[in-house]
Amino acid sequence: MAKEKSPRRPQAETPKGFRDYFGSEVTARRDMLAAIAEVYHRYGFDPLETSAVETVESLGKFLPDVDRPNEGVFAWQDEDADWLALRYDLTAPLARVAAQYRNDLPSPYRRYAAGPVWRNEKPGPGRFRQFYQCDADTVGSASMAADAEICAMLSDALEAVGIERGDYLIKINNRKVLNGVMEVAGVLDSLNPEWNAERRGIVLRAIDKIDRLGEDGVMELLGEGRRDASGDFTEGAKLSSHQIATVMTFVGAPNAINRAMAEVLATGQSHPQWENAKNPHFRNVVAYGYLKSIIGINRTGQEGLDELEQIATLLEAQGYGPDRIVIDPSVVRGLGYYTGPVYEAELTFEILDKKGRKRQFGSVAGGGRYDDLVKRFTGQSVPATGVSIGVDRLLAALQAKGRLASNTSGPVVVTVMDRDRMADYMAMVGELRAAGIRAECYLGNPKNFGNQLKYADKRASPIAVIQGGDEAANGTIILKDLILGAQIAQGATLEEWKNRPAQIAVPRADLVSQVKKMLAP
Amino acid sequence: MAKEKSPRRPQAETPKGFRDYFGSEVTARRDMLAAIAEVYHRYGFDPLETSAVETVESLGKFLPDVDRPNEGVFAWQDEDADWLALRYDLTAPLARVAAQYRNDLPSPYRRYAAGPVWRNEKPGPGRFRQFYQCDADTVGSASMAADAEICAMLSDALEAVGIERGDYLIKINNRKVLNGVMEVAGVLDSLNPEWNAERRGIVLRAIDKIDRLGEDGVMELLGEGRRDASGDFTEGAKLSSHQIATVMTFVGAPNAINRAMAEVLATGQSHPQWENAKNPHFRNVVAYGYLKSIIGINRTGQEGLDELEQIATLLEAQGYGPDRIVIDPSVVRGLGYYTGPVYEAELTFEILDKKGRKRQFGSVAGGGRYDDLVKRFTGQSVPATGVSIGVDRLLAALQAKGRLASNTSGPVVVTVMDRDRMADYMAMVGELRAAGIRAECYLGNPKNFGNQLKYADKRASPIAVIQGGDEAANGTIILKDLILGAQIAQGATLEEWKNRPAQIAVPRADLVSQVKKMLAP
Repeated sequence: MAKEKSPRRPQAETPKGFRDYFGSEVTARRDMLAAIAEVYHRYGFDPLETSAVETVESLGKFLPDVDRPNEGVFAWQDEDADWLALRYDLTAPLARVAAQYRNDLPSPYRRYAAGPVWRNEKPGPGRFRQFYQCDADTVGSASMAADAEICAMLSDALEAVGIERGDYLIKINNRKVLNGVMEVAGVLDSLNPEWNAERRGIVLRAIDKIDRLGEDGVMELLGEGRRDASGDFTEGAKLSSHQIATVMTFVGAPNAINRAMAEVLATGQSHPQWENAKNPHFRNVVAYGYLKSIIGINRTGQEGLDELEQIATLLEAQGYGPDRIVIDPSVVRGLGYYTGPVYEAELTFEILDKKGRKRQFGSVAGGGRYDDLVKRFTGQSVPATGVSIGVDRLLAALQAKGRLASNTSGPVVVTVMDRDRMADYMAMVGELRAAGIRAECYLGNPKNFGNQLKYADKRASPIAVIQGGDEAANGTIILKDLILGAQIAQGATLEEWKNRPAQIAVPRADLVSQVKKMLAP
Repeated sequence: MAKEKSPRRPQAETPKGFRDYFGSEVTARRDMLAAIAEVYHRYGFDPLETSAVETVESLGKFLPDVDRPNEGVFAWQDEDADWLALRYDLTAPLARVAAQYRNDLPSPYRRYAAGPVWRNEKPGPGRFRQFYQCDADTVGSASMAADAEICAMLSDALEAVGIERGDYLIKINNRKVLNGVMEVAGVLDSLNPEWNAERRGIVLRAIDKIDRLGEDGVMELLGEGRRDASGDFTEGAKLSSHQIATVMTFVGAPNAINRAMAEVLATGQSHPQWENAKNPHFRNVVAYGYLKSIIGINRTGQEGLDELEQIATLLEAQGYGPDRIVIDPSVVRGLGYYTGPVYEAELTFEILDKKGRKRQFGSVAGGGRYDDLVKRFTGQSVPATGVSIGVDRLLAALQAKGRLASNTSGPVVVTVMDRDRMADYMAMVGELRAAGIRAECYLGNPKNFGNQLKYADKRASPIAVIQGGDEAANGTIILKDLILGAQIAQGATLEEWKNRPAQIAVPRADLVSQVKKMLAP
């Protein structure tokens, strides 16, 4: 018999693309989600938590990267041959819930959910295969008031977590406007719906990449295709140059609108459908006019414009003006299932990228109307609209703005001078904890007292409690002010520091009251 | 070409063994976890959140059901041939973290974690394949003070969520005592460690099933094996009848201790190592004495007994007496990796089972010392101990005790009498929300007003706001008190109810102040 090898040790590593969150990383997210949930609750939304695992057929395939149709999710085959998968977003499970409980849920059903989702994608720097989303959706309402409400709520949620007004902008567009543009351009052949869907998908994903690829890159993708820096070739939509020009009028709308605004302002001219250039909703007015000029009399496009106008009016009635929410034709969203309004929250303040260049922080949330997702299950159309907040992106934004409270107060550390008196030290810790003070006893090997102070330092401990034999004999304890101590110590050796007055001897009976006094600000 | 079938509709169903949580089911768990986290924080524990996915090799195989060694986890093969799996508990990921970050983490490292875990087991009634755990562990301390601390903290956590003192008991035992008993019985052959491990595993799992199988069932499993009601046969440990008798002395310890306590109390006899029968720790004293009588001079067993005594002494110093924490030899825990103290929190109050019979609620948390888990990765022994709270079990217990606050206050519902005036209704909702009042506008089809009131009812709405054409013309609104209305309605028809004084007309400008008044308790 061959000699058995000793078993190989497992690697102590997260799988590629996954990470761990420690201490304040966990509490900062928890606190942010609590603040958002408070807003969602106030808007009448109810919490829902579905499990991480769904059947593959129930999830469906709606990930933007349809170039790799069988990828994108973590899936496996169950014992009874069912294919199961980790959810890739919180919308697909909601559609399943809305269908499964359609006779029990209120209609319309407003729900919010927060939790991790998983994407089986190539990991990269800052790009993880598990991340948090926080969603709010209204299922069962075809009213534009539902879309307007989601946008208003998103605005309130951003402010609730600490993004100030002026530092963000919620941009609204409508897929029907884009569809209208494509009809005008003759891209959509009404006799061939499948070819349509594929075509529209390619155009949509091309436009969604405008920030990354610029107008030239988008035009390549609308035409024959595009070869990226690595040499990979992406097939294009093969539009004619005339068609590309029409679609690009739409893609270039934000710049055109800016130019038009400047011109209108220069002439003092007013717009017939709205008031005049001094109107606070001026930008929306100009955007509306510009889009109207592209879609002309196309019916689909006009429907989209009407819906945009309704949303703007409803938001105005609640006081949400274009300083918070604007119409912006550049927003298309990558997901295939949107059918009407789409929206995106952008943070407008600048940060430095890795190369030290200034850039806008960018998108932290997005969503839209998806009227056909529930229909997949039931065959009956159920209108729905909702938003998803990219939790980790928003946390990064708060960090960049210095808005994350570092509430990681370290514990008072009771040191161990005499290991035979552990019961005494544990009693001290017990008293402090019972008084609501965060405290611990040093539980490592107590032999080296320096290690205990190093430990207290690593724990950001404000106070060390010390009781050696002498103190025990005369019924006292020593309280060492470690915050003051550390400040003094910056210019002093450990020996010097030990003799500094940043420590006091107090009666054992006064432990709690004295610690409280030292912790008071 | 064959005619294409229309695509089959997906089933709107959770996969077998998974479930959804709605509304207060989500908030009750969230609030309970927050209360537990507050206690853990006070004890100096830091939060850690690892991802749901780990490598299979890093997780290891420690699930109790080793009869099916390749099952128990949801696993799949990654593109680069790595096997990944969903975590089955929060301890295995902690061991990985402790090894991976061993140079950065404070030592000892106290951490807490809460989150879902997954088990690929046969689902059953009330038995799900995704459930929550809430853990606290201390890694890097060999001191029994670490174990004592976990037990004290568990006691505080149970009280913090609303389990009253007297309704729970934390039971402590030590694996070394059980190993000592097995050595005394001659079950463990020191020349054959692998055979030992397997043998010990079978004995352990047999003892752990005492509640379910009774003494006879356990004895069958210690002997040749046991055939269950379904006809399935479980291989036994094949102990001799003498060995079985010795092990059963240990298994029967709780009853024997009760008898011994009664006898000692009757004679007034005192125990040499402790004070006397009047000692409040009397039960611990008797348990100690009884266990000592089984293990005799066995060294392993004595070590276990010494550790138990240390823990009892440390807990006593903090005021945690046997009304909260006791020594109990019946606790062994099913998991294979425990090496010393093991503990379990049991709820002692009675509930009615599904057949209407009274029974104790039973275990809601358990844990112990596992000194070798980190060693798997690093080769170096790292002592560790910790507890896991079964979150769903504890929630069920709170529910049974009526301790779950139903804080699901429904929203004020603004009804829609005239769909052309949505902006007006949205403005009302906006004002209420801005004043911190939970409110929504009815977003379904407004045609049938009865449906709107049914909706408000389903939402448990306290107030409906109504403004038809007349009210709009004279600048008023109607506030309908739905809670009062519902009470009146219990004995009245809808028509009668409509004319009841449970509604008032107020000026539109007073919307917020009047709603506040009606909501005030």
